[in-house]
Amino acid sequence: MDIETKKQKATTWFTEIRNQICTEFESIEPSGACFERTPWNRGEDDTPNESGSILKGGGEMSLMHGEIFEKVGVNISTVHGTFSEEFRSKIPGAQESNGNFWASGVSLVAHMKNPFVPAIHMNTRMIVTSECWFGGGADLTPTFEFEEDTADFHASFKECCDRHDPNYYLKFKEWCDRYFFLPHRNEARGIGGIFYDNLKTDWDKNFAFTQDVGTSFNKIFPALVRRRMDHDWSESEKDVQRIKRGRYVEFNLLYDRGTQFGLKTGGNTEAILMSMPPEAKWV
Amino acid sequence: MDIETKKQKATTWFTEIRNQICTEFESIEPSGACFERTPWNRGEDDTPNESGSILKGGGEMSLMHGEIFEKVGVNISTVHGTFSEEFRSKIPGAQESNGNFWASGVSLVAHMKNPFVPAIHMNTRMIVTSECWFGGGADLTPTFEFEEDTADFHASFKECCDRHDPNYYLKFKEWCDRYFFLPHRNEARGIGGIFYDNLKTDWDKNFAFTQDVGTSFNKIFPALVRRRMDHDWSESEKDVQRIKRGRYVEFNLLYDRGTQFGLKTGGNTEAILMSMPPEAKWV
Repeated sequence: MDIETKKQKATTWFTEIRNQICTEFESIEPSGACFERTPWNRGEDDTPNESGSILKGGGEMSLMHGEIFEKVGVNISTVHGTFSEEFRSKIPGAQESNGNFWASGVSLVAHMKNPFVPAIHMNTRMIVTSECWFGGGADLTPTFEFEEDTADFHASFKECCDRHDPNYYLKFKEWCDRYFFLPHRNEARGIGGIFYDNLKTDWDKNFAFTQDVGTSFNKIFPALVRRRMDHDWSESEKDVQRIKRGRYVEFNLLYDRGTQFGLKTGGNTEAILMSMPPEAKWV
Repeated sequence: MDIETKKQKATTWFTEIRNQICTEFESIEPSGACFERTPWNRGEDDTPNESGSILKGGGEMSLMHGEIFEKVGVNISTVHGTFSEEFRSKIPGAQESNGNFWASGVSLVAHMKNPFVPAIHMNTRMIVTSECWFGGGADLTPTFEFEEDTADFHASFKECCDRHDPNYYLKFKEWCDRYFFLPHRNEARGIGGIFYDNLKTDWDKNFAFTQDVGTSFNKIFPALVRRRMDHDWSESEKDVQRIKRGRYVEFNLLYDRGTQFGLKTGGNTEAILMSMPPEAKWV
C-alpha cells in the first residue's frame, strides 16, 4: 500500500472513531447537551511560525459541557509541514526527511461532573517523517478509586493488546505507568492503562491495533461511566476532585509531550488545551 | 566585604522583608486570618536527588487564606548544593564552580478574593556560583484593569529604579514585559512591572536596589489592595478571574524559569507550587 493510501485510511479512521465516541457520549448524557464542533484550518501557508516550524492543515474540535460530562473535548487533526531545526533532532526520521512531517490523530480528555466517575484520556495518532509509525494509548484518572473499575479497565486493554501481540500489554502498561507520573509529587497521574509510540513493525497490523485501542476505549469507558454516574456525591468530594484535577493540569503543562509538542510547533492552542479541566483547585 | 558576610546580609534582609510583608498583609486582612508558617529543611545530605543535583538547606513557607487574601504564599529559602551536569551549563558561573551554588531569596504570590483586586508576584534573590548576582522583580496581574492602578504601580517601580540607576527602569520594565508573556496565547500575563537578573555591577549598590524593590512593593501593593478591596463583585466577575487564573497557571507551569528551576533541581514542591491559584477555570 502506498503512503498516501495509508494516510487516507488512518485519517478516515480517526474521523470515524471520533464520530462513534461522540455519539456514544451523547447517548449517555441526559441533559440534551451535544458536542459543538469547531473546524480550524491553517491553510497552506509556508511561512514559519514563531517556533520556526511550518504547520499546515487543520482539524476539528468537538466540545461538550453536560450534566455527566462536565467537560469533554474530542479533537481530530491532520497536519503537515516542516519542523524547525531545533525540533527535528527530537523526532525519529525528521532529520532524514529535512524536517518534513505529516501527522493525523484523535485525542480526547473527559472531565466528569461526578467525582466518583473517573477522568479519561485517549489518543491515537499516525506520524510520517522518513519513517511512519503509530502511537497512542488510554489512561484512567479516578479521584476515588474503585478496584473493580481499575481491574475492568486494565482487563479491557489487556484483551485488546493480546488480540494483536502477546508482548504488547506488559510493555505498553509499564510505559503508561512510567509516562503518566509526576516526579515533583512522586505520584502517578491516575491508575494507568496503556501507552505506545513509534510502533512501526507492520503497517496493517499496527493500524489494526490502533483501531482496536479506539474501539476498546469506546466500550470500557462508557461502561464505567454508566456504572458510577448515579453515585451520590457531596461538595467536599467535589473539592477532592478539583484538587486531583490540579495535578492533571500540572502533568499536562509540565510534562506531557503532546502538549509541549503542540504548543512548541505553533499548534492550535485552543485544541491542545482542551485537555484542561473546567475547574481546578490548589490548597 | 567577604562573600559569607554578603550571604548573611542578604539572607537577613529576605527574612526581614518577609516579616514586614506578612505583617502588612495581616493588617489589611479583616478576618483575623494569619500566616501559617511551615519551615522545611533538607539537612546536609550529599546524595544527589532524582534530577542529579544535590540540594541542601531549607526555608520557610508562609501561607494565609483570608477574606481579602484568598490565598497568599510568601516563601523564603536559603539553599546550596551542586547542580547536575546537565543543569550547570544553563547557569552563569556554574561550570566554573563545578556546579556548586548558593541561593537565597524571598518569593511571593497573592491571589485575591475580590476580582477587582489584582494578583501580584514579587521575588528577589541572591545567587552565588563562581559569580554572585541579584535578580528579582514584581509584576501585577489584574483581571479587570484600572488605568489608575496600572499607572501608580509602574510609577512606583520607576521611582524605585530611578533612585538607583537612570538606566534601570526602561530596561527592567521591558524585560518584565518580555518575560511574563504567553506565546501560545499571544497575550501578556498581566500589566507587567519590573524584572531583572544577573545584576552584579557592585554588590552594595545591587543589594540596596534589591532591598528597595521589596520595600517599594510593600508600599504600592497594599495601597492598591486597600483601594479596590471593597469594590462590589458578582459571581460572573469571579468567573472571569478564575479564567484569568488559568492563564497564570499556564504561564507558571509552561514557562516560568523559577518554577522549572525549582522542580528540576528537586526543590520543595509545596513551596514552589504555592504560586498556584486556589481556584482556576478553563472553558
